[in-house]
This record gives sequence, structure tokens and C-alpha cells, in this order.
Amino acid sequence: MNAIDRLVEQIKKKNNPTVMGLDPRIESVPAYIKNEAYKKYGQTLKGASEAILEFNKKLIDATADLIPAVKPQMAFFELLGEEGVRVFRETCEYAKAKDLLVIGDVKRGDIGSTAEAYSSAYLGKVKIEQREQAVFDIDFITINPYLGQDSIEPFLEDCTRYGKGIFILVKTSNKSSGDVQDILNFGGKFLFEHVAGLVDKWGKVLVGQSGYSAVGAVVGATYPDQIITLREVLEKAFILVPGYGAQGGTSADAAKAFKKDGLGAIVNASRSIAQAYKSDRWKNTYCEERFDEVARVEVIRMRDELNKEIARKITGH
Amino acid sequence: MNAIDRLVEQIKKKNNPTVMGLDPRIESVPAYIKNEAYKKYGQTLKGASEAILEFNKKLIDATADLIPAVKPQMAFFELLGEEGVRVFRETCEYAKAKDLLVIGDVKRGDIGSTAEAYSSAYLGKVKIEQREQAVFDIDFITINPYLGQDSIEPFLEDCTRYGKGIFILVKTSNKSSGDVQDILNFGGKFLFEHVAGLVDKWGKVLVGQSGYSAVGAVVGATYPDQIITLREVLEKAFILVPGYGAQGGTSADAAKAFKKDGLGAIVNASRSIAQAYKSDRWKNTYCEERFDEVARVEVIRMRDELNKEIARKITGH
Repeated sequence: MNAIDRLVEQIKKKNNPTVMGLDPRIESVPAYIKNEAYKKYGQTLKGASEAILEFNKKLIDATADLIPAVKPQMAFFELLGEEGVRVFRETCEYAKAKDLLVIGDVKRGDIGSTAEAYSSAYLGKVKIEQREQAVFDIDFITINPYLGQDSIEPFLEDCTRYGKGIFILVKTSNKSSGDVQDILNFGGKFLFEHVAGLVDKWGKVLVGQSGYSAVGAVVGATYPDQIITLREVLEKAFILVPGYGAQGGTSADAAKAFKKDGLGAIVNASRSIAQAYKSDRWKNTYCEERFDEVARVEVIRMRDELNKEIARKITGH
Repeated sequence: MNAIDRLVEQIKKKNNPTVMGLDPRIESVPAYIKNEAYKKYGQTLKGASEAILEFNKKLIDATADLIPAVKPQMAFFELLGEEGVRVFRETCEYAKAKDLLVIGDVKRGDIGSTAEAYSSAYLGKVKIEQREQAVFDIDFITINPYLGQDSIEPFLEDCTRYGKGIFILVKTSNKSSGDVQDILNFGGKFLFEHVAGLVDKWGKVLVGQSGYSAVGAVVGATYPDQIITLREVLEKAFILVPGYGAQGGTSADAAKAFKKDGLGAIVNASRSIAQAYKSDRWKNTYCEERFDEVARVEVIRMRDELNKEIARKITGH
């Protein structure tokens, strides 16, 4: 089944177009979890990795019935070497077992057979002698478009073969994203608009029953005007919207990425959920030990606020 | 010591501006190595990883006295999950112990604290409670520029702090690289020229005793005309040149990346060295079991051919 159809199904079932980002910085894991892991494995890469795995599992347990997907950020796992990569894989497996879709935020981009290797690792299978086996086997990954079409094709093939999807960086949420993405071309178009056109073109072969393509785009909530432009250019693409919450994007900003059918986007929140216990909104009500409980409360609050803004956008008032 | 100065020192010492790419596809590892690993660990991700580690070590043993650096391609390690990432780390350690510089071809690119995590993983250190520890601890990595300056800054800081370097993708060697990189801007400049300007600017703070910066650029040998243009724009940057050999770039093409001082570039060869035993040039002389011996012969051949072309470029005849 087309990956975007599976995502749409989960979004509808849970009435929630948000994805929980898992950006597990070791310094943000509650002390009681860290101490238990350190007792067993020491203050080592393995100890930190085990603490992060436990932290992720508790966040998933607390929210799995409310959210359609999780988005683990590979950098924070890679930071802990092979032990971190193992718990990335185990976090993904845990989430899948709870019926969640997994969007691996890996932002890979490479050429030819190297792109094939990345694609096989995350979306497809590796062949060892006569036997094919899955490695990370997740639903979606994020991709960097700088290397052009032949760097995307291996992923498109695996998306078709295995029912997977990709989200291609178009306009990222960071302050300097314009250094390259806002270059104006000869025709007066921004580079991010040109890339959006490529995303739409590349995605044509992967449009599902939902009318959306398994080739989506990343557009930051911190650039609401650009979201409006891109929502027009991206006819069939789902938009993955980072930058909500801690980075400054609001629900009203994110709502601009949705279409009249109330679909077409998924909004990521990482710190605002996983570290809700530290936030101004919740820190006086919840202590660190109840981080998972308040994560759930924050997911519900965000869902309701976002749904209200989406309804407002659709109805126009 | 500035990373680029360490690289220049090695290049001068060995009179060789080539880097051996380690792109270990399991299907290209000689059968006798694979079978030994499979006997111990099965035809598993671990078995394949151990075979690749052994293959890499033998290639390094055969060439370490002749080359300044190796460039492992992360995708082929990630393809084998956490076991692959472990042997990536062990391959890097093995190369460093043989006095080789290591350029991790990871093409990472992300924002803010995520970029910091990648930088800490490859160039810097991770802090677990009060203790800082290195993870991969290699000399250089490759970086994707699509996300702009604030995605580069964490790497620049670690380059300064730990004496490391980066190579930023400017014009990649693949056929479709122009889809994004050749966009003409309003001023009639190609995007890759604009990015080269950024590379030069970002690298100003990291110029070493050699006169070169620890912030380099990736420009494919498959685009010789663009190399000429970029060699002018990139005043202080070392150019990492992929695309030689199997991808079609020649020594004469690659020589265009060098400056009058005979330095300023490093040329990568992966398949043409590691799989020299399969090449038209050598397959009738060497069998698979002697892959490391012929790798050494090919490194010498390539070195001499490249040095001849560089001399020709400098003297003009």
C-alpha cells in the first residue's frame, strides 16, 4: 500500500496531523532514566544509548494512540556511534509495533550506487549472497535535493517496490535557509520554488488513492508566506512542516500547509512534546518524572489547537 | 594543527595527491574474505560487516605508504546497520593508526543543534555527564550546503577547536548535478559558483600555514570546464575531486583543480583501486585473491599519471 495512503489513514483515524519528533539529546533525558542505564552500562556510549531508548519508548507509550507517526532525528543517534544506531533501529521497531508510521529524519543525499545503498538501508533491503534482508525498514525518510534527479531515482524505485515514501527538503525552517534556497533564478523564481517543481514532477509516479504522492516536501513553519506559495506549486505533495513550537512557528503558520480537504500536511513537534515538562506552559504542573504524562497532555493540546486552525483556514473564518 | 596543513604535509611526503575511496559493496569483496567471515558469523549483517572490515584493512595495508588519505563512504556501512557503523569506525581507526588522514564521505547537512550533533559525532566530542569522549574522531567530512550558513557553523567551530576540516559539495560528479546546481541566478551566475563563493567566505577563518583553508570544496572530475571556473573562484579552498576513473574523469581533467604550486586538490579513486583486479587494465594479470597487490600497482600508476598531468598543467607543456 502506498506510504502516503497509510499516513493519511492514520491521520484520519487519530484525527491528528502531527508527528512527534524524537530528537533525544542525552542531556534532556530525565535523571531517573539516565541513572538506571548508567548503573547497568556506565556513563558510556552504550549507557547513554540505552537511556535514550528507554526515554523514546516511554514517549511512544504515552502518545501512540493519539499520533499517526514519529520522526526520529538520526543525528542524535549517530552521535553515540554504533550503539546509538542500534537504538535508532530499536526505536523504529518499537514505534512500528505500536502501529505508528516512522519518518526517519536522515536528510541523506548522494549519487548513483551510493544513493542506492542509503535507500536499501532505510526503505529497501540489502542483499547478502542470495538472501535479501531489511535493515532499518522504515516508512519514510527525508532527502536533500542538491544532487539532482539521479540522486533521487533509487529512492523512488524503492518507494514503488516496497510501499515507502520520501520527504524532500524544499524550504527549511532555519534562519540561514535562504543562503542557497532563496537564490532568485533568471525567470524570477526562487530556488525553493524550482525544487518544489522538481518534487512535484518526481512524485507523479507515486500518487496514491488519497490523491497525494508518496514524494513529499519539507517546508518550515517559520516561513508562512513561502508555505502559501509552495502549497500552490506542490499539487500532489504532502508537506512535512518542521519549525513548530520551540523554533517559533505557530499553529496558524502550520495550518497554511493544509489543503481544502483538511489534509496535505503533517506538522512536527519535537522539543515542545518531549521536553514539555520544562516548558513555561507545563513546568509548574508536572515534574521531570512525569515527562511522558505531560507529553501526552501537550500532544492533545497541540492537536486541538492545530485542528482549530486548519478548520479556520478551510472555512475562512 | 590545521587539518589542511596535515593533509598538505602527507601529500608532500608521499608525493601523491590521491585519496583512496573505500566504497565497500559486499558483492565486490573477494570470495575468500567473505567466506571466512560467513563461516564465523553467518551470511548476516555482522558477517558482511566483518568481511568488509577485513577487505578495507588489506587495502589500507597495501597502500598506506603511498597515499595521504582514505575516504570511506558512509552509505555502504550504514547499509549494514549498527554492525556496519561499527566497522566504519574501526576502518577509520585502522587508517589513522597507519598515519593516514580520514575523510568521511557522509554528506551531512542539518540545522542548529542537529548539525552540532553530527559535528560532535564525526569531528568533535560527545559529552556524557561530565565526561567528553570522541566517537568517530576523523579528520574531514563532506557536507551538503543546501541549508545555508547556520548549518555550517557548528562544523566550523569544531574545525577550529579540534584541528579538523570539511569539504562542502559545490559541483558534484553525477549526470543530474545540474538540476539544482546549474540554476542560473539573476546576476548570470550558476548556483554552484554562488555556493563556491560561500565556501570561500566560510573558510577564511580556517586558513592554515600552507595558505589553504580547512574548508574545502567538492568538484567532480566529470565537469572539467566547471573545475577551471571554480579554481578561480575558490581562492583558498582545497578541492576534493571525485569522479576519476570509473565515472569517466581523466587525470587531465582532475589536474585542472590544482594550482601553480602543484597543490590545492586531492583526487579520489574508489572502484578503480579497490576493484582494480576486475578492470580491463589488470584483470588478465591479477586474480581476485591478489586484489590488494594490484590495488597498490594501480595506486602507483595513478599517482605517476596524475603527477605528470599536474606538471604539464603548471609548466603549460
